Amino acid sequence: MPLSRRAFLLSTASLAVSSVPGVWAWPAATPDLVRINAARLREHIEKLSEFGRPSGGTFADGVTRVGYSDADLAGRGYVVRLMKAAGLEPRFDAAANIIGRRAGRDTAAKPIVFGSHVDSVPSGGNFDGPLGTLAAIEVAHTLSEHGIVTVHPLEVVAWTNEEGVAYGNGLCGSRAAADELVAGELDQVWNGVRKADAIRKLGGDPDHITDARRAPGSIHAYLELHVEQGGVLDRAGLPIGIVEGIVAIDRYECVVRGTANHAGTTPMPDRQDALLAASRLVQAVNEIVTGEPGRQVGTVGRLEVTPNAPNVVPGLVRLTVELRDLSAEKLARLAGLVRARAGQIAAATRTTIELTRSSHHEAALAAPAVREAVAKSADDLGIAYASLQSGAGHDAQMLARIGPMGMIFVPSIGGISHSPRERTSWEDCARGADVLLGSILGIDRMSMSAASPVS
Amino acid sequence: MPLSRRAFLLSTASLAVSSVPGVWAWPAATPDLVRINAARLREHIEKLSEFGRPSGGTFADGVTRVGYSDADLAGRGYVVRLMKAAGLEPRFDAAANIIGRRAGRDTAAKPIVFGSHVDSVPSGGNFDGPLGTLAAIEVAHTLSEHGIVTVHPLEVVAWTNEEGVAYGNGLCGSRAAADELVAGELDQVWNGVRKADAIRKLGGDPDHITDARRAPGSIHAYLELHVEQGGVLDRAGLPIGIVEGIVAIDRYECVVRGTANHAGTTPMPDRQDALLAASRLVQAVNEIVTGEPGRQVGTVGRLEVTPNAPNVVPGLVRLTVELRDLSAEKLARLAGLVRARAGQIAAATRTTIELTRSSHHEAALAAPAVREAVAKSADDLGIAYASLQSGAGHDAQMLARIGPMGMIFVPSIGGISHSPRERTSWEDCARGADVLLGSILGIDRMSMSAASPVS
Repeated sequence: MPLSRRAFLLSTASLAVSSVPGVWAWPAATPDLVRINAARLREHIEKLSEFGRPSGGTFADGVTRVGYSDADLAGRGYVVRLMKAAGLEPRFDAAANIIGRRAGRDTAAKPIVFGSHVDSVPSGGNFDGPLGTLAAIEVAHTLSEHGIVTVHPLEVVAWTNEEGVAYGNGLCGSRAAADELVAGELDQVWNGVRKADAIRKLGGDPDHITDARRAPGSIHAYLELHVEQGGVLDRAGLPIGIVEGIVAIDRYECVVRGTANHAGTTPMPDRQDALLAASRLVQAVNEIVTGEPGRQVGTVGRLEVTPNAPNVVPGLVRLTVELRDLSAEKLARLAGLVRARAGQIAAATRTTIELTRSSHHEAALAAPAVREAVAKSADDLGIAYASLQSGAGHDAQMLARIGPMGMIFVPSIGGISHSPRERTSWEDCARGADVLLGSILGIDRMSMSAASPVS
Repeated sequence: MPLSRRAFLLSTASLAVSSVPGVWAWPAATPDLVRINAARLREHIEKLSEFGRPSGGTFADGVTRVGYSDADLAGRGYVVRLMKAAGLEPRFDAAANIIGRRAGRDTAAKPIVFGSHVDSVPSGGNFDGPLGTLAAIEVAHTLSEHGIVTVHPLEVVAWTNEEGVAYGNGLCGSRAAADELVAGELDQVWNGVRKADAIRKLGGDPDHITDARRAPGSIHAYLELHVEQGGVLDRAGLPIGIVEGIVAIDRYECVVRGTANHAGTTPMPDRQDALLAASRLVQAVNEIVTGEPGRQVGTVGRLEVTPNAPNVVPGLVRLTVELRDLSAEKLARLAGLVRARAGQIAAATRTTIELTRSSHHEAALAAPAVREAVAKSADDLGIAYASLQSGAGHDAQMLARIGPMGMIFVPSIGGISHSPRERTSWEDCARGADVLLGSILGIDRMSMSAASPVS
C-alpha cells in the first residue's frame, strides 16, 4: 500500500508549528543530504556473520549466534571495535547492553537512542538485528567523517538477547531498560547457567541490574532500523516501511479433553475424540480472524496430541492460539468469539475445552513525529515508502515506554526471516541506513514536546 | 444388537447335515452340561497378575508384562505349572508358544486348538489375554476332573508376544504358526536384544523357527475366549459375544506440506498453513466414515506439527489415518473418498497432501460352524449373546489361515482395555469359560468338512 508523502501527511496529520505545546515542530531549513558508506556497511555485516557461522559455511549459510553464547560474546566484541572506529565511546550497562555514546553540542540535552541487536535464533539469518545495529554504527561513523556534531548526544545501542532463545524470554536488554524484567528472572537456569551469570559473561552487572533502567521521559527519541520479516514491502516493490506500531499479542493455552480409547473397538458414536474437537477449533480461529476486515492475524502454531498413537482415539490435545493486532480491544473481541465457538465445539463433540490467556503483550505505537521525521528523510532522498504495522516484536516496543519511538523497515526478500535464507538486497540495506541517518538529523533538529511518551 | 438364537440362526444359515459335503454337521444328541470351576479360574487370574505387578500394588493396579520381559518369563512359568496341574503336557514350540496337549480317543484326528496370550501392554490390565489362556487351561482341568476324553486331541496354547510392544510387531507366536513372519524379523533389535535371543530366552528355538509352522488344514478348529475391549456388550447388558470376524485394517501415512512462516509478519491471505489443511482432513475423515451406515471406524490418532511453536505458522504436519471394517472393499472405497477430499483441501489451502498406505491387515472371518457351536453352547447354558465384529486384532486372525476359527467375547466394563482399569466381572469370566467348554465339546462332536479354512 504505497502512499505518496502527501497522502502520508494527510493520513497522520501530525505536523504542527513549535508554538503549539505538546507537539514536534520542524525548523525552517534542511541541511545538505549526507550519505552513509554502503560498501563499509556491507563489509561489516559480512564480517559479523562469521561469528556463529556454521563450520565450513559461507554467508549464505546463515548464523547461529544465540544470546549469551560464545559466538554472541565474540560478535559483540567485534561490535565494540566497530563503535570505537566510528568515534563512539562504548560501555556495557548493567544488563550488558552495549551503548556507544557520542557527545552533542547541548550537554543538557536528552540522548537520541538508536540501534538493534546482534543475537540470532538458531540457524537464523544475517540481517535480523545486525542490519539495525551496524547501520546505526555506520550513521555515527558517517557523522564523524563529515564533522557533523548533533545538538543531542547520540547513543548507539546493541541490545542484549533480543530473540530470547536462551531462557525463553526475549527483549532482555530493552526490558531491563524499561524496568520490565520479571520477578526471579535473573535466577532462571538454561543449559546449566543462571541468567545472572550469563549477563555477567557478556560484561553486565546483574548485581546492580536496576542501574540499566532508563526513566520515562529521559530520552529524546528511539529509532530502530530492521528487516520487515514479512513480505509486504517486497511484494509491493517498496524499499522503506514506516512502522505505525508494534502489534499487541495475546497468547492462549488451550486444553481439549476427550477420552482416549481403542481405535478398533470404540464405535464412532461413542467417541469423545479430542483431536476432532481441536481440529474444529483450529478452523474456527481461522474463520473468526479472517471474517472481518483488518490486518489482524491468528495462529494455531503448536498442537500436541496424547497419547498420539495411530490406533488410539486421541484423549487430550494441547494447543496454542495466538492473536495479534494493533488494537487490544479487537484482540479481546476476537478472543471472545473464539471462546464462544470453543464452547459450541465442546458441546458438539462431548469434550471439554479450556482456554486460558497465558500472555499479553501490549501494542506499542510509534510516535507520529518520529514517523514524520522518517517520512521527510525518505522524501529528501527520493525513496518511496509506505506505512505498515510490525507483526513481530522488537526492542523498540520496550523503548516506547521511555520516549517517542519509531521504526524503519526494509524489505525481506520473499518475506523470509529466522532462516539462513533471510535476505535484504545490499541496495535496500544502504537505503535504510541513509533514511536512518536523515531521520536522526531530523529528530535532532526537533524541539522536544512536553508530552508524555506515546505508547 | 442382541439376537435370540433363532434370529442368529436365521442370520447365518450355516447349519447343515453331515451328508452335505463341505459343511459341519451336528450329532443327534448333546451330553450333560459340564461347568468349569469359577473360583479356581479367578484364583489363577489373580495369581498370574502378580507377575509384572507394579511394586507395592494390588490386582487393581494392573500389570506390565511386556513380551520377552522377565515378568513375561516368570508368568509363563506359572502357566506351565497350571497346565501340568490340569493334566496337559506342555512343550515350547520353536516360536516359544506354550502348547499343552491332551490326547484324544482318535489318534489320527486333528487337534482342537484353543487359548490366548499372557503378555500385556505397559500398564495394561489383567484380563486381555490371561482370561482366554487360563480359561482354556481351566476347561482342560475340568475335563480331566470329569474323566471326559474328547475324540480330537486338545491343544491349549499361550501365544508368544501378542501385543507387540517389544519389536513393534505383535502376534509373533501366531504369525510363526501361520508362516507370516517377515523377512529379517528375527534380527530386529529392541532394548539391545535380538528378537532371536528374546525367543530363545522364553524357551523357543529361533534357529529352527519354521518348525513352529502349522500347515493349513492341519487343525480341526481354533477357538479363543477374549475380553471385548470395547463397550458393545457392556452397554447392551449381554454376557457373551460371538465374533463374526476380525476387521481388516488399512493404515495411511499422510504428509501435509505448507510453508513455515512468522506468525506475526505473515498476513492471513499469504499463509500456506499445514495445520489448517490437516485440521480439515481430520474432519473429512470423520465425516466420510460416519457418512454411511455400518460399523466401519476411522481414526486420526497421531498428528505431529513442525516446527510446532506458538509464533510460527505450521509448515509441515504428519498424521495417520486408520480405517477398519470387515470389508476390504469398503475400506478401499472410503480411502478413495478421503483421497479425493485431501486433493480438494490441498487446492483450497495451497498446500500439498500425500497419502500413502503404510500397512494393510486383511480381515479374518470366523467359520460359521464354529460360531454356531458357540451359539449352541450358550443356548444350552441359557446365556444370552449377540454377534459382533472384533475391531481389535487377535492371534485368532492368524489361526484363521490354518483352520476354522472362532472367538468368544465377554464384556469389558465401560469398554476399557489396555489400562489398569480394564475389568470383566468374575461372573462373566466364568460364563465365558463355561461357553468355551461347551463349545469345545460341541466342536469335538462335529465331523470335519473337506472345505478349505474360511478366512
